[in-house]
Amino acid sequence: MYGIAILGFGVVGSGVAEVLEKNADRIALGAARELSLKYIVDIKDFPDSPYKHLLTRDFGAVERDPDVRVVVETIGGAGLAYEYTRRALEAGKSVVTSNKELVALHGCELLKLAKERGVNYLFEASVGGGIPILRPITQCLAANRIYEIYGILNGTTNYILTSMIKEGASFEAALKLAQDKGYAEADPSSDIDGIDACRKICILADLCFGRHMNPEWLKTVGIRTVTAADTVYAGRGGCKIKLLGRAVANGDGRVSAYVAPHLVPSENLLAGVDGVMNAIVVRGNAIGDVMFYGAGAGKLPTASAVVADIIDAAKHERSRKLISWEEGSPSMLRDSAELVSRWYARVAADEKTVLAAFPGAVALGGDGGETAFIAPGDSKAGIDGALSSFRVLSLFRVMD
Amino acid sequence: MYGIAILGFGVVGSGVAEVLEKNADRIALGAARELSLKYIVDIKDFPDSPYKHLLTRDFGAVERDPDVRVVVETIGGAGLAYEYTRRALEAGKSVVTSNKELVALHGCELLKLAKERGVNYLFEASVGGGIPILRPITQCLAANRIYEIYGILNGTTNYILTSMIKEGASFEAALKLAQDKGYAEADPSSDIDGIDACRKICILADLCFGRHMNPEWLKTVGIRTVTAADTVYAGRGGCKIKLLGRAVANGDGRVSAYVAPHLVPSENLLAGVDGVMNAIVVRGNAIGDVMFYGAGAGKLPTASAVVADIIDAAKHERSRKLISWEEGSPSMLRDSAELVSRWYARVAADEKTVLAAFPGAVALGGDGGETAFIAPGDSKAGIDGALSSFRVLSLFRVMD
Repeated sequence: MYGIAILGFGVVGSGVAEVLEKNADRIALGAARELSLKYIVDIKDFPDSPYKHLLTRDFGAVERDPDVRVVVETIGGAGLAYEYTRRALEAGKSVVTSNKELVALHGCELLKLAKERGVNYLFEASVGGGIPILRPITQCLAANRIYEIYGILNGTTNYILTSMIKEGASFEAALKLAQDKGYAEADPSSDIDGIDACRKICILADLCFGRHMNPEWLKTVGIRTVTAADTVYAGRGGCKIKLLGRAVANGDGRVSAYVAPHLVPSENLLAGVDGVMNAIVVRGNAIGDVMFYGAGAGKLPTASAVVADIIDAAKHERSRKLISWEEGSPSMLRDSAELVSRWYARVAADEKTVLAAFPGAVALGGDGGETAFIAPGDSKAGIDGALSSFRVLSLFRVMD
Repeated sequence: MYGIAILGFGVVGSGVAEVLEKNADRIALGAARELSLKYIVDIKDFPDSPYKHLLTRDFGAVERDPDVRVVVETIGGAGLAYEYTRRALEAGKSVVTSNKELVALHGCELLKLAKERGVNYLFEASVGGGIPILRPITQCLAANRIYEIYGILNGTTNYILTSMIKEGASFEAALKLAQDKGYAEADPSSDIDGIDACRKICILADLCFGRHMNPEWLKTVGIRTVTAADTVYAGRGGCKIKLLGRAVANGDGRVSAYVAPHLVPSENLLAGVDGVMNAIVVRGNAIGDVMFYGAGAGKLPTASAVVADIIDAAKHERSRKLISWEEGSPSMLRDSAELVSRWYARVAADEKTVLAAFPGAVALGGDGGETAFIAPGDSKAGIDGALSSFRVLSLFRVMD
């Protein structure tokens, strides 16, 4: 028997159970064996669930059962999830997860432990929900030196920004709408302050550049400061405002990585990625630019990626997947402020004054004594200096 | 020694040699061993090539050399390429290729032969050039029932259509430009008549639906009949004209597959895929829609995909990749004419007459006694019937 245990019967965990049942024949074909869901571990009771006979609170039973070959960790967070993941790996079971917080914080260590025990730790669903992205990076782009990766990594903020752009809503109104629709949580800070996107760009950077990138090392700016006016001015410049996570190799082994709102020109396909969808661009020295697009969250899309990892773990029981990265340190980061790009600024000044101070700038209009414009390429220090005599209302990079 | 032989030292073959050398360290890391390029088989001499010491005309030497573990077939066509592929597989060597014609015609048989000999036949580069698409379908989406796949599968025709849209060029002028730039061949028919796209949608359908789809069974319409006027009218309707290959599961085991120009609404990301770029949308019952975008042709992008397959073959020398499909027959096709969609038509009639005949149609204007419009959802038979009293100048599906 090739047994599966699911830890945490929330949205993703119950989606995994659903996909395992719904697509059982196709999954058995892919895994070249029958998979059997044997336990669901949760502290809550689910008296009406069709899976109630599998529910238990006792992780120890899972840990001791030799029939359980893959443990699906969909608890979330870095507390109990961390403990159970370690214990499952130590017990010689592969672990599959959608938990970006845990992978971003402890992925390096957990992959090392998996390697020691000859099992797999897989986490395709931790970035981009159901979008195939981690496996394509490690396998399909294995012949490339990847020099940059960036993308729309958080569906909640993309939904809010899309509402602001399409309906002219204020940030507060758009957030309220996202909460009403279930796309944003009651406490939305981990989404709207960029923390979720930061974890994901760290995991992508870990895989692309081979060294652990701690989310705490990155400058992370969310979307609270984006105004409806900014989205209108951006539109006049042929751009949409998107929250991007980005990591760029510097050529000297250092990496610039950060999360911030950007103006994305309409020629860039990311500008057309609306609502809760995610998309990730990878740039390699042979392939050029490739983009991966799809649902970045949601029950079944995320479960689709988790189950693909279960299939992979089942197929590779004796041949470990070669996914790993080295320990890292803050010294491998190059300050993202050094990156040169065009800048969008909104300042309390008239257009004439702005254009006199910024030769080559493109004015996007303004009213009530403010002017929005796009300034030519400069570093953060450079643009800050040039703006020092202005009262700055908004300042975002343009993704060129 | 893990030796590689390249058959055919053209654009892709020489790109493979270049990528193997340029990214050797990263490739060795991915393959977990050193790869060594040992032979290049070509009937031509390349006296100035840095690889001239590896060049030979003798495939027999490759066939007999036990050090050669992977043969890269970049000859093209289904003649010599077919013979050498069979012989290499029979000699117990894995074969990696970008040859869509051979895979579309003989993939089923060659995969069977590879299985018998315990080696791999891999062809990621045959569809979408460097874009990771076949491996994501077989691995990352393995937990899904895929019910539709469609995309822009040919860069030459997309370049021509993009020129027509952006510069208002005629088809002939845009084709000439593409030839001058090296994007179209002197005899461009296999691209512009949709034959290349047809081979690719067949390979995608083989993988998604598990049975061999012969390119000869498909209705294949190219872009010769698209006029500059059509691209303008389409633009007024918020659409771009794109050549799509498409395969849709019917639910009864049959598949509708065809190649034809479509109007793609701007909300669909494919509308923003311009120039020589390709993009493929996969629709699965858990994942929803995912899209893969990148360079569909070109020396290094295609070589990137070929070398990823070499790495995969090297890593899986003892555990075969589970890629295969069954024999098929024309009876598994559902006539694509039965598929219902909205239609774009340009007819020799005035707007009033058109709107009287097509209630609910959206007029896109016209001059010189012609009218372009988008008709509501109908089958091909239905729209043909409704148009029977009109002289039809253009008729294309809308991709809804």
